[in-house]
Amino acid sequence: MITLSLVGIGSGNPEHLTLEAVRKLQGADVILLPRKGAEKTALADLRRHIATEMLSPAPRVVEFDYPKRDADTPEYTDGVTAWHDAIAAIWAELIARHVRDGGRVALMVWGDPALYDSTLRIADRVIARGLEMRIDVVPGITSLSMLTSAHAIPLNTLAGAVQITTGRNLRAAGWPEGAETLAVMLDGECSFQCLPPEGIHIWWGAYVGMAQQITLSGPLSKMAPEIVDTRARARAENGWIMDIYILRKGAN
Amino acid sequence: MITLSLVGIGSGNPEHLTLEAVRKLQGADVILLPRKGAEKTALADLRRHIATEMLSPAPRVVEFDYPKRDADTPEYTDGVTAWHDAIAAIWAELIARHVRDGGRVALMVWGDPALYDSTLRIADRVIARGLEMRIDVVPGITSLSMLTSAHAIPLNTLAGAVQITTGRNLRAAGWPEGAETLAVMLDGECSFQCLPPEGIHIWWGAYVGMAQQITLSGPLSKMAPEIVDTRARARAENGWIMDIYILRKGAN
Ligand SMILES: C[S@@+](CC[C@H](N)C(=O)[O-])C[C@H]1O[C@@H](n2cnc3c(N)ncnc32)[C@H](O)[C@@H]1O
Ligand SMILES: C[S@@+](CC[C@H](N)C(=O)[O-])C[C@H]1O[C@@H](n2cnc3c(N)ncnc32)[C@H](O)[C@@H]1O
Repeated sequence: MITLSLVGIGSGNPEHLTLEAVRKLQGADVILLPRKGAEKTALADLRRHIATEMLSPAPRVVEFDYPKRDADTPEYTDGVTAWHDAIAAIWAELIARHVRDGGRVALMVWGDPALYDSTLRIADRVIARGLEMRIDVVPGITSLSMLTSAHAIPLNTLAGAVQITTGRNLRAAGWPEGAETLAVMLDGECSFQCLPPEGIHIWWGAYVGMAQQITLSGPLSKMAPEIVDTRARARAENGWIMDIYILRKGAN
Repeated sequence: MITLSLVGIGSGNPEHLTLEAVRKLQGADVILLPRKGAEKTALADLRRHIATEMLSPAPRVVEFDYPKRDADTPEYTDGVTAWHDAIAAIWAELIARHVRDGGRVALMVWGDPALYDSTLRIADRVIARGLEMRIDVVPGITSLSMLTSAHAIPLNTLAGAVQITTGRNLRAAGWPEGAETLAVMLDGECSFQCLPPEGIHIWWGAYVGMAQQITLSGPLSKMAPEIVDTRARARAENGWIMDIYILRKGAN
């Protein structure tokens, strides 16, 4: 029997690893480590650090390259499925090669594997290709939990609902009806700028949990330009950025 | 300087502790441990297990009783603030007594401290009472991440939005406009029964991450009676229950 463990590693701080994540990685017959491709180097580096310095004895690590994604195919469109298929083919080949007679393969997944991540969908495609295996998901600390932790704020108001969404959705649909709190991820364009800022508070964070962490918060009307500016500078300095934010109506 | 660490411990599995949580609990001058009151015994037991068996050397643990909440004051109403104030008074007294000259006090919080939890609000009240302290939030695995992990499913559809809400909100407002995926917590009444079930899929879990874990999933029309029944029996058997579920429209 083959088991594929998708192990949530948290959002950038190696100390986000849970005891279960350490045990599952430690006990894997092989850890598959994407070298780069779609993966940003800093993210690949954290995975390598975990695999080679935080586990002992270090398990066998097999690095592999991601297929190039057609630049004309933005993520989250129909075209993405072809790319997922290409990745599934690589995983299937690696899994069959390294644990042919059964065993456990582990993959490290950023944050929590359930939140805006394709790993589970790709794993399903591996199974659809005919490779029999069990999928084991190890939950991880999300970048959203790390954002609220960095600001020491609750995600929800007392008994209030929270909508988690993407920058693209926010631009397309505006503030969702009835929502009091919005958490926005996957936003390369500071999409909060599309909202009339009155009465909205923002808690923003980039590189949350990492050494470069930056946090800003305040009334959106005041903070929007400062965040846009800070984000552009940080991105230029680091060569990449990941940011996430919470918007709340009626908060001060 | 006094620091109060609110340490997310995950949703029932001691292996959900992160390395940071272990370090922060381990290094605390004192861990405050609520004995029961509003706390269910099983939850208090997990905390005690963590404090006394998973840390070594075991730090100093101070158990305390929660004030009784007026039975006529349901949680999540205005009346709850009086109860939070009463708890804040107890914390303030304990903190002042045990780390008068500075130090670190830790409190274990179920799941992630930011998600439907009052701890941060109570901590703010302690500060408002005049006790100077820094609040340090250690993120934890949410019961929602544990639910998706148990079912090995993504929380969101590709690029789709997710609304996290309570049973009460679902009963009051029905399916929120525009939402594709709903995650429902704090629901003592199987509130999914208030929805027309056609076209909705449910992934349900009780005691997720714990030894008694139960999961059920399928079309809501078919699963609703089975979940209601399973929940009632499990609750009677265990004397308590905590459950959580995801609803998705258009999924099969
Ligand atoms: C593909 S999603 C993966 C999310 C991940 N599975 C999780 O649980 O957080 C990537 C998005 O997550 C957010 N993100 C992830 N890590 C982050 C970090 N360290 N700081 C800020 N945002 C982060 C950003 O919004 C980014 O666009
Ligand atoms: C007061 S909230 C606390 C949530 C917690 N802070 C978290 O991050 O999951 C309690 C609700 O969380 C959910 N919950 C917490 N632990 C759970 C578990 N082990 N199994 C199922 N549901 C759980 C239930 O919906 C319950 O009503």
